[in-house]
Amino acid sequence: MPEEKARRIVSLLSDFGAGGGYVGAMKAVILSRVDTHIVDITHDIPPQEVAAGALILRSVVKYFPQGTVHVGVVDPGVGTSRKPIAVKAGGHYFIGPDNGLLMPAARSVGKPEVREINVKRIALQPASSTFHGRDIFAPAAAYLALGNDFSGIGKKLERWQETELFGARRIPGGISGKYVCHDSFGNIITSIEGEEFRKLFREKEKVSVQIGDMYQVLEFRGTYGDVERGKPLILIGSHGNVEIAIREGSASGYFGQHRGSEILFKRLSF
Amino acid sequence: MPEEKARRIVSLLSDFGAGGGYVGAMKAVILSRVDTHIVDITHDIPPQEVAAGALILRSVVKYFPQGTVHVGVVDPGVGTSRKPIAVKAGGHYFIGPDNGLLMPAARSVGKPEVREINVKRIALQPASSTFHGRDIFAPAAAYLALGNDFSGIGKKLERWQETELFGARRIPGGISGKYVCHDSFGNIITSIEGEEFRKLFREKEKVSVQIGDMYQVLEFRGTYGDVERGKPLILIGSHGNVEIAIREGSASGYFGQHRGSEILFKRLSF
Amino acid sequence: MPEEKARRIVSLLSDFGAGGGYVGAMKAVILSRVDTHIVDITHDIPPQEVAAGALILRSVVKYFPQGTVHVGVVDPGVGTSRKPIAVKAGGHYFIGPDNGLLMPAARSVGKPEVREINVKRIALQPASSTFHGRDIFAPAAAYLALGNDFSGIGKKLERWQETELFGARRIPGGISGKYVCHDSFGNIITSIEGEEFRKLFREKEKVSVQIGDMYQVLEFRGTYGDVERGKPLILIGSHGNVEIAIREGSASGYFGQHRGSEILFKRLSF
Repeated sequence: MPEEKARRIVSLLSDFGAGGGYVGAMKAVILSRVDTHIVDITHDIPPQEVAAGALILRSVVKYFPQGTVHVGVVDPGVGTSRKPIAVKAGGHYFIGPDNGLLMPAARSVGKPEVREINVKRIALQPASSTFHGRDIFAPAAAYLALGNDFSGIGKKLERWQETELFGARRIPGGISGKYVCHDSFGNIITSIEGEEFRKLFREKEKVSVQIGDMYQVLEFRGTYGDVERGKPLILIGSHGNVEIAIREGSASGYFGQHRGSEILFKRLSF
Repeated sequence: MPEEKARRIVSLLSDFGAGGGYVGAMKAVILSRVDTHIVDITHDIPPQEVAAGALILRSVVKYFPQGTVHVGVVDPGVGTSRKPIAVKAGGHYFIGPDNGLLMPAARSVGKPEVREINVKRIALQPASSTFHGRDIFAPAAAYLALGNDFSGIGKKLERWQETELFGARRIPGGISGKYVCHDSFGNIITSIEGEEFRKLFREKEKVSVQIGDMYQVLEFRGTYGDVERGKPLILIGSHGNVEIAIREGSASGYFGQHRGSEILFKRLSF
Repeated sequence: MPEEKARRIVSLLSDFGAGGGYVGAMKAVILSRVDTHIVDITHDIPPQEVAAGALILRSVVKYFPQGTVHVGVVDPGVGTSRKPIAVKAGGHYFIGPDNGLLMPAARSVGKPEVREINVKRIALQPASSTFHGRDIFAPAAAYLALGNDFSGIGKKLERWQETELFGARRIPGGISGKYVCHDSFGNIITSIEGEEFRKLFREKEKVSVQIGDMYQVLEFRGTYGDVERGKPLILIGSHGNVEIAIREGSASGYFGQHRGSEILFKRLSF
């Protein structure tokens, strides 16, 4: 299959939602400086949920071409002393707040080099204290998308925030993780990576699941269509993490929405 | 009016919603392979509602330039034995599951030629069983957007699924159809094509309407502004089908949401 | 920082929502005629809320490069006698209905020249009476994005609709404005411009606020992180107007949603 040379594109991920025109303002700033494609990963990260944003960003980064500039803005600390950073890893670039959002994605493609964005040199002047996406991160993304040298974006950092995102904990007879978020179908995405899960359970095995106060025995299957309509199941979702789903239904609606709560998976034979 | 030559663009329609980063992953795969514009038709098709997706896709296809590659993913059968297909009709291309989603749009522009996508040759390897949009349909769209020959996408099919979408049934003194979906304004889009309706009713005529348990006499008008604020009306919507709307209000909220239920239109004089 | 020459891009703002495929149809019409970037400002303006659309459009226009063609469609009067217009101001172009939507944005960048779009010459034929976004405004945007002369779009108008948008009224000891809309975080955006507010109140001052039946004393601060989590505050938002917010919470949820209702800010010492 013949392939064209991809351009240096910019991806955007945020919790801005569709309503306020914030994403449009960021795109205006970027396109004023560089002629490129801008891809929305999503702007519907639950407000301020850094871990959910980090998981989604990590799940898509490898599908973008090298050289892509990923801008992530889930930023409860906007306007405080948290630093604006740029990260280079595996040929990808990442722009956003120093709160752990970018790091799982960066680590998934390479060894990260982290720099503090030089606001005086790179940002719109004066930069507001409420909207760094537009005033700092968008100009920084344009700076990199234009092919400028990474070192010019600001001084190198030795320390930065990480996310304790993919916390999975082995428990007697099973594994425990967290309800990170759910998608538009109501599929519950957990913090447990598929590989970890496969070490403990095999496909078609029945597994005891506990979410909050609910207990249920679910089958671990390959895809939604492997169970009857309306039936819940466990699968490894397209994010690479363990997912609880209901075929043609909403697992988050059925089990209730407990973002951040613990989910336990145990062997029945235990 | 001078016109530039349009590029071979890609359109996307799905029920993925805005939340999970799924659309971003598809765009990443496409833009990694081909430098083109990608247009979102909508990603808010009600989950698994193939008929609603088929109607929306059919309503917009003719506004795209020839050569456009339309990717439609409303796919309750993902990972099962339903085939991934590519369709060529009237100079347009369509990519998606073999469940009827693509066919009304394809038929609206020409005589369809249908092929099964050669997953081994075209798809990401290994293709997941949960996300064919990213792993099969996006690479197939890129393959066609690059200008590759249609026959190279896979072997020709003689049989495929159709949608019984635009079911309108003549009844004594009128016509009966279905509540397919509603838009963001709450306008109810029915399965009855405007042309059929115009054979029975003339503009400004009062028509007896039955939705579920509700009966009401509504006027058939040309546009929303033809009635007073807050008043319901019947019109031929921009999709080309019969629509029930409330001026500056929500018909789906007022009449209740009965997706799939029957709607009867009858002459008053009957 | 090196800059590339920006292309003549098209921005879109509407109350179409994500669901009906309307935005996709407009983009299809534009991209069929001109090869350019299209930026969605937002399509989630509350249905028919011209003032909210005008405020959002005005808040982003200055971030776009000169030459941008801004299409705004919040259009309760579609299909009635209200005129379709094109506006040129400060090197930007604006396309939409003559209902005041475009004027605050146009005035924010320059002195507006207003023309009535020549539907016969510019629009799709026949233009529907329900979807001027697709049939009139999109072709008009493409006409301008192609670099055609502004005067060719239609005859000059001497009168047009303005929006009484940014109504702020001095009251004894304070200022009164309106609840225009809220964003996805639940931040309430008022009709009071930041500059006006700063004449009366200084940062860190405690201010008495009345929204509907609720009275509360809030601090006027620089950014969300200046107060504790869950605490409400007053700030000048990134739109340039006075905003009422709750750090990591939803002010619109807390205070109730009173679009259009009055908000009074008064000095405590008064």
